[in-house]
Amino acid sequence: MTISPGVAAIIIGNEVLTAKVTEANGAHLIRRCRERGVRLVSVHVVPDEVDFIVEAVLLARRRAKYVITSGGVGPTHDDVTVRAVSLALGRPVVTLPKMVTILRDAWGETPPPAEALRMAEGPEGAQLIASSDTRFPVLMASDVYMLPGVPELFRSQLETVVARLPGQPVSLRTLYLQARESDLARVLDATAAAMPDVAFGSYPTFDATLDYRVKVTIEHADQARVAAASERLRRDFPAGIIVREDV
Amino acid sequence: MTISPGVAAIIIGNEVLTAKVTEANGAHLIRRCRERGVRLVSVHVVPDEVDFIVEAVLLARRRAKYVITSGGVGPTHDDVTVRAVSLALGRPVVTLPKMVTILRDAWGETPPPAEALRMAEGPEGAQLIASSDTRFPVLMASDVYMLPGVPELFRSQLETVVARLPGQPVSLRTLYLQARESDLARVLDATAAAMPDVAFGSYPTFDATLDYRVKVTIEHADQARVAAASERLRRDFPAGIIVREDV
Repeated sequence: MTISPGVAAIIIGNEVLTAKVTEANGAHLIRRCRERGVRLVSVHVVPDEVDFIVEAVLLARRRAKYVITSGGVGPTHDDVTVRAVSLALGRPVVTLPKMVTILRDAWGETPPPAEALRMAEGPEGAQLIASSDTRFPVLMASDVYMLPGVPELFRSQLETVVARLPGQPVSLRTLYLQARESDLARVLDATAAAMPDVAFGSYPTFDATLDYRVKVTIEHADQARVAAASERLRRDFPAGIIVREDV
Repeated sequence: MTISPGVAAIIIGNEVLTAKVTEANGAHLIRRCRERGVRLVSVHVVPDEVDFIVEAVLLARRRAKYVITSGGVGPTHDDVTVRAVSLALGRPVVTLPKMVTILRDAWGETPPPAEALRMAEGPEGAQLIASSDTRFPVLMASDVYMLPGVPELFRSQLETVVARLPGQPVSLRTLYLQARESDLARVLDATAAAMPDVAFGSYPTFDATLDYRVKVTIEHADQARVAAASERLRRDFPAGIIVREDV
């Protein structure tokens, strides 16, 4: 497996896996990566357990240059992300003096309790990426960005991260068809084989209230390539099955 | 890492990672596992690529006794789940005669095209689990359940699967608090250390329209244990911070 110049995401939280909160950060990250043309190679939801997170980080780093984690960076006993990421990177956990200053400023007159200062910990050599849009900087070490799980904070820090990542928006066309998926498979497979640089998707629905039975998507960075693939499919598909096309 | 008697889920689909469809099957699976008291150890969203799926299946099987996959079992070029699961299990892909019969029956008068018969493939030794609620049986090999990604089909087959899994519904209490999370951390950590069998969660919000700032959850199979943990927290937390409790 080659390392993608994209992102592998890790959502950390028992609260997600036990349905105590609806998973929102993964869905938001998927949408923002799409909008920015950043390739997302996987999303892995794991519990607040060091072993699971270490394993997920090691796997993510074999797959993608950039890793974004969500959750487990607060002050309580279940916040083990910094420790796990440090283990995965083979670095000790240290207190980041700059972050101590930021936390003291945020607390104002009353000094922050010892537990709050846990939030100043990071893997040795970590960077703090400041942004005018977020109160706290983004914590990053070796291209692993450790974001808070609280949705408001996750979203604002994510903007700081995606602005730094390489991206190229993708062109998309969608064909809506009245046919069984298996009746399209031969043409779709032949076209995919002939145009390996283009990404094709085929999504059947069994919802009888819709005016189509299969949706076929065509994607490429180059709009002309998407148009050529669409033309080829429209030529080779059985006659009369195309309901409409979204460009 | 010990193998959990629960489930590790794998959601297969470029369409999810590229935000062409909203991920619904993972969220539904999380909710149903919760309702049935089935422990869910991870949810892994990966692309339609054999290498990714093989790796995800191997990892899932190290974590959990049961694996549920969603997607990649249709008739088109991007449907590679059966091949990948077979590779991960070290078994050849074979055509399952019983499934061929089922597909021929489903097609009726006109014989199904060769592409449709791809849906009759499975890892050697696979079982087909019939249910009165689903048109097609559930495909399973070595406790890896391969479900279709189309949401209607996924949901109906999932019911057949969860009915077979060991589960114990969990009791939950939720405390809503007016305090900073870091002001609770000491008490919460001490309680979690004293009652290691009880699962505690702590979830801050920054939404000023809400009447609380942190939500603390307490979970255990035994309702009395949950009540004891709640009592201990209410005794040890700073006075006057509890807004309400959901039992």
